[in-house]
Amino acid sequence: MQLSTRNQLAGTVAEVVHGTVMTKVKVTLAGGETITAAITREAAEELDLVPGSAVTALVKATEVMLAVD
Amino acid sequence: MQLSTRNQLAGTVAEVVHGTVMTKVKVTLAGGETITAAITREAAEELDLVPGSAVTALVKATEVMLAVD
Amino acid sequence: MQLSTRNQLAGTVAEVVHGTVMTKVKVTLAGGETITAAITREAAEELDLVPGSAVTALVKATEVMLAVD
Amino acid sequence: MQLSTRNQLAGTVAEVVHGTVMTKVKVTLAGGETITAAITREAAEELDLVPGSAVTALVKATEVMLAVD
Amino acid sequence: MQLSTRNQLAGTVAEVVHGTVMTKVKVTLAGGETITAAITREAAEELDLVPGSAVTALVKATEVMLAVD
Amino acid sequence: MQLSTRNQLAGTVAEVVHGTVMTKVKVTLAGGETITAAITREAAEELDLVPGSAVTALVKATEVMLAVD
Repeated sequence: MQLSTRNQLAGTVAEVVHGTVMTKVKVTLAGGETITAAITREAAEELDLVPGSAVTALVKATEVMLAVD
Repeated sequence: MQLSTRNQLAGTVAEVVHGTVMTKVKVTLAGGETITAAITREAAEELDLVPGSAVTALVKATEVMLAVD
Repeated sequence: MQLSTRNQLAGTVAEVVHGTVMTKVKVTLAGGETITAAITREAAEELDLVPGSAVTALVKATEVMLAVD
Repeated sequence: MQLSTRNQLAGTVAEVVHGTVMTKVKVTLAGGETITAAITREAAEELDLVPGSAVTALVKATEVMLAVD
Repeated sequence: MQLSTRNQLAGTVAEVVHGTVMTKVKVTLAGGETITAAITREAAEELDLVPGSAVTALVKATEVMLAVD
Repeated sequence: MQLSTRNQLAGTVAEVVHGTVMTKVKVTLAGGETITAAITREAAEELDLVPGSAVTALVKATEVMLAVD
């Protein structure tokens, strides 16, 4: 499957916190940065996300903002 | 200024393509990955984004999806 | 590849309109509805989207709103 | 009221799961597909969403991604 | 029609800039602030948006970030 | 720090409701309107958001929809 989604960053799940509806997942990227995702709990369970899982973080280009100092 | 936005990735602008309303900006992260942002042309001009500009890419946690193989 | 993205709707590309940065793609779903996507032109070209292409429209659950009459 | 929102899909609420802040709503479309929405609990209660409610799922075009096999 | 969308701000269109795919619309709110929307040109034309049009700006709660000094 | 984010509305926190993963924050704008944000609990705690906090609500232009009567 090939996605239109421009941003695809490989990493490893570092932390999973489940709420009733939403789940927070922290992912450590290969480059060392941490990415935080808030996805549905349903999705987190279906993908069986636990610390150590290999994942790719996906972000649509229209969702990225930029800041300068 | 401190932001609620969880994902803040430092990088350098590699490419800027202006349309009439939107601008595509490619950012090379410190870790080597490339991030693509689609922002308004107005914002790109106001921030004076050109190749070589130091920027931070910002993404709200609710905008991050995850994929597993 | 398995995605956290909850909404995955199969369809066929009906129309593609390219701007400089963004591309509008209209997709006819199996159920007959039409979905409109605004993606980067770069993505539309990379996926070689033309009328008749089989595609899946993806939408994160946090991006869906609901209305009642 | 007429909306700029391009994607408006009619359906029926199939399931409602309330968290403290967010609520997951599953909607069965006329075409048979299921749409999952993550909205605030406040909104779900204000719209009085329960299984069987007639709803329209709304998605902005800039939030739709596309995938090809 | 009643929307789950939490943020509904009444205003008047101040400026419309059309690109091929996207249109930028600036809206002056009753409180005096300016809101900028990037919507599809198709939507802007369908709603017949021109300077002086009375509009409501809509934003899903999950799209709002917060900053503190 | 200067942001590409077009919409920056100053206000005061009126209400904070914490879930396990997400937090709802209601902000009263200078102009009198109320803005509702759904952010991660982690962010709400890091920014120490409580009723009375001075905040700026941020919204990317691509996330704003428009409605006409």
